[in-house]
Amino acid sequence: MPTAPIYLDCNATTRVRPEVFETMRPFLQDQYGNPSSAYRLGSTAARALEQARAQVAGLIGAQAEDVIFTSCGTESANTALHSAISAFPDKRHLVVSAIEHSAILKHAEHLARRGYAVTRVGVDAEGRVQPEAVAAALRDDTAFAAVMWANNETGVISPISEIAAECARRGVLFFSDAVQAAGKVPIDVSRVPGLHYLGLSGHKLHAPKGIGALWVRPGAPFSSLLHGGGQEEGRRAGTENVASGAGFGQACALARGRDLAAVAARRDRLEAALLERLPGASVNGGGERLPNTTNIYLGGVEAGPLLLLFDKAGLCASAGSACSSGSVHPSHVLRAMGCSAERAKGSMRFSLDVFTTDEEIDRAVEIVVRSIDKLKAALAG
Amino acid sequence: MPTAPIYLDCNATTRVRPEVFETMRPFLQDQYGNPSSAYRLGSTAARALEQARAQVAGLIGAQAEDVIFTSCGTESANTALHSAISAFPDKRHLVVSAIEHSAILKHAEHLARRGYAVTRVGVDAEGRVQPEAVAAALRDDTAFAAVMWANNETGVISPISEIAAECARRGVLFFSDAVQAAGKVPIDVSRVPGLHYLGLSGHKLHAPKGIGALWVRPGAPFSSLLHGGGQEEGRRAGTENVASGAGFGQACALARGRDLAAVAARRDRLEAALLERLPGASVNGGGERLPNTTNIYLGGVEAGPLLLLFDKAGLCASAGSACSSGSVHPSHVLRAMGCSAERAKGSMRFSLDVFTTDEEIDRAVEIVVRSIDKLKAALAG
Repeated sequence: MPTAPIYLDCNATTRVRPEVFETMRPFLQDQYGNPSSAYRLGSTAARALEQARAQVAGLIGAQAEDVIFTSCGTESANTALHSAISAFPDKRHLVVSAIEHSAILKHAEHLARRGYAVTRVGVDAEGRVQPEAVAAALRDDTAFAAVMWANNETGVISPISEIAAECARRGVLFFSDAVQAAGKVPIDVSRVPGLHYLGLSGHKLHAPKGIGALWVRPGAPFSSLLHGGGQEEGRRAGTENVASGAGFGQACALARGRDLAAVAARRDRLEAALLERLPGASVNGGGERLPNTTNIYLGGVEAGPLLLLFDKAGLCASAGSACSSGSVHPSHVLRAMGCSAERAKGSMRFSLDVFTTDEEIDRAVEIVVRSIDKLKAALAG
Repeated sequence: MPTAPIYLDCNATTRVRPEVFETMRPFLQDQYGNPSSAYRLGSTAARALEQARAQVAGLIGAQAEDVIFTSCGTESANTALHSAISAFPDKRHLVVSAIEHSAILKHAEHLARRGYAVTRVGVDAEGRVQPEAVAAALRDDTAFAAVMWANNETGVISPISEIAAECARRGVLFFSDAVQAAGKVPIDVSRVPGLHYLGLSGHKLHAPKGIGALWVRPGAPFSSLLHGGGQEEGRRAGTENVASGAGFGQACALARGRDLAAVAARRDRLEAALLERLPGASVNGGGERLPNTTNIYLGGVEAGPLLLLFDKAGLCASAGSACSSGSVHPSHVLRAMGCSAERAKGSMRFSLDVFTTDEEIDRAVEIVVRSIDKLKAALAG
């Protein structure tokens, strides 16, 4: 029986928390009703979903009725963009940051093939999207702008309130992908006027895969991506994923107001140890970052083959995001920050959660250092 | 502690089977990897998903690589229609049966508002879509036709092979919604040339809510509804719902080749008892039907208020589909069959599963008869 690996890839996905699993369990067992059904078995499911909606809303300072459950963060992002372009069919320009998740970038590329103009706003050397850069990109025919709250690869947080203000000034609908930020840093949509849509994903904060949410500001345009039954107040057709919705709510309730100083301290401990032990190593990204994330240039060794050695030694980390891990291209995020292709390919992301221990961090450092030595020896021999 | 209700609403949703729950459990606990991740925790999840894909394919005579996991039957149906109209942007006519699920009907209505012509093909008095009627509706500019394999409200099965042949003759892309049929009657897509897309939903066959699948014939046009990561071979972006996908696969494996003669016998027992005990009662729909479903006109009492009495007595059934249960309109399915609005509002659907017992059927009959007596007395008093 192999021991559990040291899991430092929490930005790829997270373990379902035991409390979340227990919240889901009844709906995967006796409480199997369809929330639309007109009997108690149905209304029990419907109530659980409404409680969960309030819990999700609570994490981001929203009202429950403005939260729509979706199947994933990608659906949330796609729905926001779809809503904006449906509302303004004559505005054919989109603004996206260069470091967005593929749920925005690929959707924008798809629309570009249908005649949309897309402006990619770059980032500064620390990985932040600058409000001035967004402002400069906005046009009279801009329908939609997207800047993620925190980047999945570097953890760098962009000044969302200021960017939202720039969009509001130009009457542009603004979406922020908070898939990585939610539950790790405080988010309060009520204090970000100009923000119209916010995307969330369950599996990044200890709920299961297959559930997400989209917050829509009251009054902001909305167009359903899925057409069918009247679920989610007619905003998202399809029988509701009751068990996962309930689990997502519970995960949000557990994350709300949680102090992640200890997580940040462990991340700093990992970072400091690696910078000390690895000649030439340095951190990608700066300024305000998520407490759990670090992205490190390892000093001149390729990350891809290292992952195999990590895996053998029982350490999970990643080079780039999981969503693009099949790709041979260097990270578009690091490239946008001005890193060379060589530096991008030689960088590794480590992302922690509240369950990561000091002892795991120390073991991880040893595994990283030893694996690099092994790889260098193999390449030299 | 109230006893569990007699659940005769299995076309609305079903209980997750214990074996399915156990299949899902590891992925909600220790095996939480992202299938896209480049380490064992990820590849374990990826393998489970591929096994599940083969199991889903096995239920319908398909190849695993032609099955795409989705979040629900609605997404499957919407994706098929989206694929067809994306492939033939100049063909602006759609053919749908009048008894389709809202996932098709509402999507077609949405497209009608965007300029599409939509022909609704009626059904015969027994509730069947006739191939000749579909053939007569097809035009040179028809992009897509949809006829469900079996209807959710009546269980009536339409002659899909012959309808597919008519569509093939006219070069029209043909989708069948098999959400209710799969696992209840044999489906073999390899023996239905002319069928291009087939939709499935997990929660109708003892997998959880929040997972579905779309089968796409090799060579048939396909356009993604969700844009983002390269999951599902680039056909459906978004982190895969590993636990539910694995459960769906297990549910399909358990349903495959299962003889439902005993279910049909219990449905017949229920039907015979109600027809005998309720003056004026009669069955809606005829010909070949799903073994688990009956839709009965109760002889002149409204179904809506009866459901409340059923619920009090511990019986779950439905008037119309769960997806439209909030609606005050009489069933569009029964209306299409030529039923009066009064008959449609006075009809009830009972749908069984393999766990329904004779004893439950007998108790259900007593509850139905007593509830009708009570309701009549209340209305008379």
